[in-house]
Amino acid sequence: MKISDFDKAEILVQALPYIQEYNGEIVVIKYGGNAMVSDDLRACMMADIVLLSMVGMKVVLVHGGGPEISSCLEKMGKESKFINGLRYTDKETADVVQMVLAGKINKDLVRELSSHGAKAAGVSGLDASMIKAVKKTDAGDLGFVGEIESMDTGVIKDLLEKGYIPVVSAIGAGQDGEVYNINADAAAARIAAELGAKKFLLLTDVKGLLEDKDDENTLIAEVKVSNVRALKNQGIITGGMIPKVDCCVEAVRRGVKRTTIIDGRVEHAIVIEMLTDEGVGTMFT
Amino acid sequence: MKISDFDKAEILVQALPYIQEYNGEIVVIKYGGNAMVSDDLRACMMADIVLLSMVGMKVVLVHGGGPEISSCLEKMGKESKFINGLRYTDKETADVVQMVLAGKINKDLVRELSSHGAKAAGVSGLDASMIKAVKKTDAGDLGFVGEIESMDTGVIKDLLEKGYIPVVSAIGAGQDGEVYNINADAAAARIAAELGAKKFLLLTDVKGLLEDKDDENTLIAEVKVSNVRALKNQGIITGGMIPKVDCCVEAVRRGVKRTTIIDGRVEHAIVIEMLTDEGVGTMFT
Amino acid sequence: MKISDFDKAEILVQALPYIQEYNGEIVVIKYGGNAMVSDDLRACMMADIVLLSMVGMKVVLVHGGGPEISSCLEKMGKESKFINGLRYTDKETADVVQMVLAGKINKDLVRELSSHGAKAAGVSGLDASMIKAVKKTDAGDLGFVGEIESMDTGVIKDLLEKGYIPVVSAIGAGQDGEVYNINADAAAARIAAELGAKKFLLLTDVKGLLEDKDDENTLIAEVKVSNVRALKNQGIITGGMIPKVDCCVEAVRRGVKRTTIIDGRVEHAIVIEMLTDEGVGTMFT
Amino acid sequence: MKISDFDKAEILVQALPYIQEYNGEIVVIKYGGNAMVSDDLRACMMADIVLLSMVGMKVVLVHGGGPEISSCLEKMGKESKFINGLRYTDKETADVVQMVLAGKINKDLVRELSSHGAKAAGVSGLDASMIKAVKKTDAGDLGFVGEIESMDTGVIKDLLEKGYIPVVSAIGAGQDGEVYNINADAAAARIAAELGAKKFLLLTDVKGLLEDKDDENTLIAEVKVSNVRALKNQGIITGGMIPKVDCCVEAVRRGVKRTTIIDGRVEHAIVIEMLTDEGVGTMFT
Amino acid sequence: MKISDFDKAEILVQALPYIQEYNGEIVVIKYGGNAMVSDDLRACMMADIVLLSMVGMKVVLVHGGGPEISSCLEKMGKESKFINGLRYTDKETADVVQMVLAGKINKDLVRELSSHGAKAAGVSGLDASMIKAVKKTDAGDLGFVGEIESMDTGVIKDLLEKGYIPVVSAIGAGQDGEVYNINADAAAARIAAELGAKKFLLLTDVKGLLEDKDDENTLIAEVKVSNVRALKNQGIITGGMIPKVDCCVEAVRRGVKRTTIIDGRVEHAIVIEMLTDEGVGTMFT
Amino acid sequence: MKISDFDKAEILVQALPYIQEYNGEIVVIKYGGNAMVSDDLRACMMADIVLLSMVGMKVVLVHGGGPEISSCLEKMGKESKFINGLRYTDKETADVVQMVLAGKINKDLVRELSSHGAKAAGVSGLDASMIKAVKKTDAGDLGFVGEIESMDTGVIKDLLEKGYIPVVSAIGAGQDGEVYNINADAAAARIAAELGAKKFLLLTDVKGLLEDKDDENTLIAEVKVSNVRALKNQGIITGGMIPKVDCCVEAVRRGVKRTTIIDGRVEHAIVIEMLTDEGVGTMFT
Repeated sequence: MKISDFDKAEILVQALPYIQEYNGEIVVIKYGGNAMVSDDLRACMMADIVLLSMVGMKVVLVHGGGPEISSCLEKMGKESKFINGLRYTDKETADVVQMVLAGKINKDLVRELSSHGAKAAGVSGLDASMIKAVKKTDAGDLGFVGEIESMDTGVIKDLLEKGYIPVVSAIGAGQDGEVYNINADAAAARIAAELGAKKFLLLTDVKGLLEDKDDENTLIAEVKVSNVRALKNQGIITGGMIPKVDCCVEAVRRGVKRTTIIDGRVEHAIVIEMLTDEGVGTMFT
Repeated sequence: MKISDFDKAEILVQALPYIQEYNGEIVVIKYGGNAMVSDDLRACMMADIVLLSMVGMKVVLVHGGGPEISSCLEKMGKESKFINGLRYTDKETADVVQMVLAGKINKDLVRELSSHGAKAAGVSGLDASMIKAVKKTDAGDLGFVGEIESMDTGVIKDLLEKGYIPVVSAIGAGQDGEVYNINADAAAARIAAELGAKKFLLLTDVKGLLEDKDDENTLIAEVKVSNVRALKNQGIITGGMIPKVDCCVEAVRRGVKRTTIIDGRVEHAIVIEMLTDEGVGTMFT
Repeated sequence: MKISDFDKAEILVQALPYIQEYNGEIVVIKYGGNAMVSDDLRACMMADIVLLSMVGMKVVLVHGGGPEISSCLEKMGKESKFINGLRYTDKETADVVQMVLAGKINKDLVRELSSHGAKAAGVSGLDASMIKAVKKTDAGDLGFVGEIESMDTGVIKDLLEKGYIPVVSAIGAGQDGEVYNINADAAAARIAAELGAKKFLLLTDVKGLLEDKDDENTLIAEVKVSNVRALKNQGIITGGMIPKVDCCVEAVRRGVKRTTIIDGRVEHAIVIEMLTDEGVGTMFT
Repeated sequence: MKISDFDKAEILVQALPYIQEYNGEIVVIKYGGNAMVSDDLRACMMADIVLLSMVGMKVVLVHGGGPEISSCLEKMGKESKFINGLRYTDKETADVVQMVLAGKINKDLVRELSSHGAKAAGVSGLDASMIKAVKKTDAGDLGFVGEIESMDTGVIKDLLEKGYIPVVSAIGAGQDGEVYNINADAAAARIAAELGAKKFLLLTDVKGLLEDKDDENTLIAEVKVSNVRALKNQGIITGGMIPKVDCCVEAVRRGVKRTTIIDGRVEHAIVIEMLTDEGVGTMFT
Repeated sequence: MKISDFDKAEILVQALPYIQEYNGEIVVIKYGGNAMVSDDLRACMMADIVLLSMVGMKVVLVHGGGPEISSCLEKMGKESKFINGLRYTDKETADVVQMVLAGKINKDLVRELSSHGAKAAGVSGLDASMIKAVKKTDAGDLGFVGEIESMDTGVIKDLLEKGYIPVVSAIGAGQDGEVYNINADAAAARIAAELGAKKFLLLTDVKGLLEDKDDENTLIAEVKVSNVRALKNQGIITGGMIPKVDCCVEAVRRGVKRTTIIDGRVEHAIVIEMLTDEGVGTMFT
Repeated sequence: MKISDFDKAEILVQALPYIQEYNGEIVVIKYGGNAMVSDDLRACMMADIVLLSMVGMKVVLVHGGGPEISSCLEKMGKESKFINGLRYTDKETADVVQMVLAGKINKDLVRELSSHGAKAAGVSGLDASMIKAVKKTDAGDLGFVGEIESMDTGVIKDLLEKGYIPVVSAIGAGQDGEVYNINADAAAARIAAELGAKKFLLLTDVKGLLEDKDDENTLIAEVKVSNVRALKNQGIITGGMIPKVDCCVEAVRRGVKRTTIIDGRVEHAIVIEMLTDEGVGTMFT
């Protein structure tokens, strides 16, 4: 299909109100899952992020990295051990988590953003003591799995002020001198809250919340935070969606204006959500 | 025709290199002719300008106003007198020129840009002594028709620095205390040069330079400044195009990187030229 | 009379406390009437304004323009229609008001200030959406006569910060997309209030408030805002003075420290009021 | 003589071009002699200096203090010893010079400027190592009488930038750790040169250079630096005027635009010279 | 004793926490007594002060000068008169106080700091109207002995901001136009309070507060402000220590975090107190 | 050995000239070898670096990481292959290099600096496209071993300006989209040159250049760059010292004022070299 010059221009002009709305505002994007492992999807997302940055938004990219951690552990011949579905993280695994997140994925993302012409810089929760962590204890002994004790986003603010797209790895240091693996959704939600972000986008591998989980046509476009408990009771929010929704609720409660779970499997999902009339995914308010 | 979300996003992302290229750069647009009198065209152009501004360009809008001046003179029952096709400007006419340009057209443009969400402010060549004029003498006595003696774009720079879209009326003050009517194309070209603009767009009512003036399919996409003399000799640059091309040549010579005559009759011509792969009109290099 | 060097120096030195008092402070001057139409008076006033600016005050000049509007309408053969003494402003008249105020008077003032060596820039209530207007309805249908709905003096502040003397035309845009004629006294008073001006000078063609309106020796030097109602009842504030006094009262109530009606027919009235021991006119406190 | 309000305003307005000319410019004033010891003259001069400062000039005041030094030495019962008309300065005398200049006169001037509403701060050539001195050797052994080896006016610039009127005492420190008495005329001329002053005023107790030294009506208004040698040969520049003229020549040569010797015995001589049409004294160009 | 390189480095590194603690903080030092008259002690102290400055503290030095004042009065053959142990200050004595403090001691300190490579500038309570004084009346008529009526530390802040070590002489101007001698301990305490200093060091000629005034091993390291009354009653705070302790109490009450009386007879007492584990003297909290 | 308070203070004060000399200056430290693997040595060095930073130097830390890379490869069961003593770096190895340097060592150093109270942030040559690399070809095919093609130290400057200690990993991106292992000594030398560092410290595991390589008492304290060729010919610069010396020569040639190879095996070698009279190692000039 050939799109006419006029139509192209119209689409660009129709983005104007969104560009104006988010001009100079902070947008935090939690990036993970398929969007990360498919080369095509990742290239689309990186272009999307650079575009948002160029039209005046202050984008912060927070990433996870489960699959690459597993693959690295495997290469080292180290067996993964799970407790209640959560990976047990011994000292050696914690080292691998740090290396893969802060050394491999973070720098690969920085490099890909750079290749689209952006000025990007990667930091971890260890840099400038950004994330102070404590051992997570509410789900049995998971080793060096931590929760956020406190957060100092000074280094992110400094990078934004200097015009960089900060790319953030979710690890934190404990007062015991140890490094802890931090859930990246939770870190991203907290960063969005601390920065007073106007928008928090959480990319996942589902379409959003569905009335009927087997029918993608039953997408719930908007959810009031006060209804979340009911939706859990009704079994609409279940399984792996529960912690993701909890992060969104937390972000909304701490003052992030708009928090949306979007489908990272859709090419250009970020630009579609941010710069077109089409909303994608489920927004929490 | 329904355009898919993906295609919309693709079009936006394809604008990225252009947005990056002009980020923080000055773009001077000379606006006049049909683009000014058709409501639809004007609305498109204003939206285009606001979009360029929002994606990081520093846009300066310079306008003429022949038809509205004529219409106002007519209301006053004042006959227009022409010498060699140029309007003779007596004292009373000079007053009307000042009023219509700086009071009517300038403020209407400012208001329309504001209605698209932009911060616009209108100034004339009289403000902060921007344009110093001398009586034009090379085409007979035309009364208060002037040429630019010197230009101080300080007020434009100050407005750009404070985030405004400056809208500029082409009149100037002489050392004799009189106000002179200045050719708006020439003023725009000079402003582009003084500001070190990266792009100068001159909107007209033709498609651009044509090899065969009766065949719009023979558009010349690019002209070297050194070839202009030859093109005049060949009769390809003729009539009303001659002063317009001379302005472009002047702008290029004074250091403006890209100078283009584009077709102001095409909706969104500005955005098509600036943010898509499609060039429109004729570029001088 | 030859004034000695010593006396000249003494007069300059005696201005010191006034210069110190208003150093860096905002002074809003509403300029109109005879001061505007007499060439000599106008030249004096412009020199006065530039002097205040040079000795460190931030001067804002707001102007009206009744006589010139009438004269332009007349040239167009358009009859003026009055309702209760207020001009009925149809669409065509509104256009003329805009042209004459923002295009003729504003730019003439800017040019005259420039000729005294000042950096002046003219803006209207339409620029940067400074004045939002609504149709005035409390005095019958007057067409496009408006009242101030809200005011954003950002562009004035930006110009002051950059060292300009802002010259302001009192017109405003309605949400209906129309341009409204705004009472310049009211606009000036409101601008003074919004800017936190230390002084508001309202130039008129009378000596000030008189105990006995036929005896200029009965000037009332100072009026408490709380006494205005009584003075109206006593017939001391009557006719055209009522709206002017109301503007002053409004300015005082909104926090302008000193508000004075002075006699615009006196040469150098502004400098006499601001830089000498002689007060002129009536001050509201 | 009663001066009318209009005349007062005219005098103020006539100062406008001078205020504009020196706006933001540095003016260095060497203050000494009678202007310093007469209470009335001193009060006039202080008011003058504060006025120049308030209308936008950056004034630096450099002072000497011969009479007060003598008086203090006398109180201490210390005899003054002169060699070729220059005071021999032993160690104890050097201490007294430092005390009287930096502690008494400097602070008295600061206090008097403050009482006129100015923000003044006093420093000496010892502060921030402003004046590096070497022993003067070309007029016999005068003890701790020094010449300027080098000058760092950083502290004066810092004070000017922060809005102070710097008051400067002419003493300097040698590399030998000793404090030297520095000729105040020379220090002032050098400070003017180092600061790129637009004007250097040297107050003395004479009317200026006179063709006939016994006839004050033969004042020479302007002297070309290139003619100074001739004037010395003619005996027009003689005695105590020689070093003063040499300082002025030095200032002009080092780039000070206007250097004038004025009569410090005239009340308000500074304001008359700087803000009125009347020049006083002799200007070197 | 030869100290090894490692030990030297260790001592430097051990200073790190103190350097960090006071980085960018204001430290006010009252300097007087023996520390001032012994050349060796003074050299040590000056080096100490420059070191604190170089490692990031904002040091303000306030000085007294009793002995030098007495010596100057003596040279002038002027007898000192004491009332209740306090010097009666007639007009002539006040002049000497001003000269000696602001002209001699202040500038000598500035020069000595400069010789250690620091950028120092001396001001008195008269500069920029820093100290407004009133006649002290609670101890009989002492002439021109004053108390602090109000303080404006603007000039000190400006000097600190520009990177200078301000050296301050304790004199003040009354509204009566007279100069008053101000107790330097009180001035220093007040300056510390006004600046929000983190530390106030008061150098004296004793070891600190002693349980048994005849046994230096009974030093009281820390005193609660609330216990001061009791310690006075017990005779532990007596005589000349009473006003010094009162100044410290005042400083603590006005918000200075740490206030310490240290022994100015100990070489490098300032660096030992500020940059080593060893506290010296008595701290008030 | 107990060191007296006075001696401690003396040592601190003796550091003053060095602190002054390097105040605000950039110091680049290449850190590697034993200093990195011994916990005690590393703790000393980190404390040293934080101290330099706190006393006003702008420290940049560049690190290598050979041993940790080998250890990680070993865990993955990957054999190391060497060509002419240089490690062949296949794609998988390049990934490990990136992970270990940018993810493990870099973040461990950042964390350790933080634990000493510093604000540190780690970046790699990939961040903000700092290091552009090309395949190294002058020593056979070594796979993804690269040389520096160009360097943009903008991100380091931004971090320094914001008060961080930048920690830099030596990897670079090629235009082919691949990541290359860069020699850390060379990267550090180039960074020092690009930043206009005043000092470049290269930590190694030797005492410095020795006249007789078997006698540590024959240390050469200073080497002229012009003598390096001769020293190579004499066999004094041999083996692994050759590339290190070449880096130093390069740094000196590009304008680094002082370049020194120091012995990283000595505790506090950095502080001893930078803040005491004792030089350690060999300086190139």
